[in-house]
Amino acid sequence: MTSQESRRTEILRASAALFARQGVASTTVRQIAAEVGMLSGSLFHHFPSKDAIVNEIVTDYLAVLLRSYREVMTRDLSARGRLEALITASLRIAEADPHSTMIYQNEMSYIRDLPQYEAVRDAAVEVQGTWLAVIGAGRDDGTFRKDIEPGVFYRLIRDAVWLAVRWYRPDGSYTVDRLAADCASVFLDGYAAFDDD
Amino acid sequence: MTSQESRRTEILRASAALFARQGVASTTVRQIAAEVGMLSGSLFHHFPSKDAIVNEIVTDYLAVLLRSYREVMTRDLSARGRLEALITASLRIAEADPHSTMIYQNEMSYIRDLPQYEAVRDAAVEVQGTWLAVIGAGRDDGTFRKDIEPGVFYRLIRDAVWLAVRWYRPDGSYTVDRLAADCASVFLDGYAAFDDD
Repeated sequence: MTSQESRRTEILRASAALFARQGVASTTVRQIAAEVGMLSGSLFHHFPSKDAIVNEIVTDYLAVLLRSYREVMTRDLSARGRLEALITASLRIAEADPHSTMIYQNEMSYIRDLPQYEAVRDAAVEVQGTWLAVIGAGRDDGTFRKDIEPGVFYRLIRDAVWLAVRWYRPDGSYTVDRLAADCASVFLDGYAAFDDD
Repeated sequence: MTSQESRRTEILRASAALFARQGVASTTVRQIAAEVGMLSGSLFHHFPSKDAIVNEIVTDYLAVLLRSYREVMTRDLSARGRLEALITASLRIAEADPHSTMIYQNEMSYIRDLPQYEAVRDAAVEVQGTWLAVIGAGRDDGTFRKDIEPGVFYRLIRDAVWLAVRWYRPDGSYTVDRLAADCASVFLDGYAAFDDD
């Protein structure tokens, strides 16, 4: 990594932390510059605007997420296994990059107004399409229920999975893979006690 | 309602809409005043500060929520019935007052810094305690699973229920009571197809 690249990475990382903590709208370029020990003028040498930083954070985040989802879709898995794998992939990315995850989940009204929104929207459509394809395949093969709309189930599971970034803290004993397994189990089997226990 | 009271209510309502749309931090007293056709100076005659408005919105919201939860707790219900009733009560309040619901769910980091935060925290503790008491009672009587931590189940269901304000639009055919029933059924029975179908 050249020193210019590492400076950009540092700016992106500091911005994501600020955006996640205090919101994009209330974060100024001056605050970001102060956080990385630069003057605002020098920061503009790396990024033309705050919106350019937001766009790069969100675009990078969605690229990582989609790479991971596409890998899940190439694997030979049942509908149930695929849904579990999407949950696990999502929670691992949320754990590895909680700030970008929070920004993408909380700042959609800001992101929608970005000049480069079209590329973000295309990625978001593929994310949603992946979940709905897996849910649809499971309904078709009799694995999942047909009496609850796929869109409703998708939204319930999406919000519960993504919002885990607000409360989940990996502490060794309760790992992210355990959280993913519990989450898949609640959403697929429910919280009612099993008949056989 | 006196005209002073109705003016206060109008300010609270306009503020909640602005806070929900653009965030509390980015909303100015000047914008709120403009929204209700007043000068900022006249608005200060009703509320000493923006924070006082935020506090009243959140306090009122939690009072309505707790009244509804307490009523659920007085009813003669099974653990499953009580959990369903909490979900229904929460979704009805979210439908009736989506702005306050969004503010409470999205702005906790702002709310935590309010000077009057202690009363909000006490109410929030009672809200969480109500869910955990119902989940705990259902575990004790064998209705709910013991292999998933009550705190994890609580957070998954809480996030899915509250975030419904972001996507749920009552349109006549898919009512809030149907959403509540679907939500309870997914969380209690799971999305896996039933054995008998």
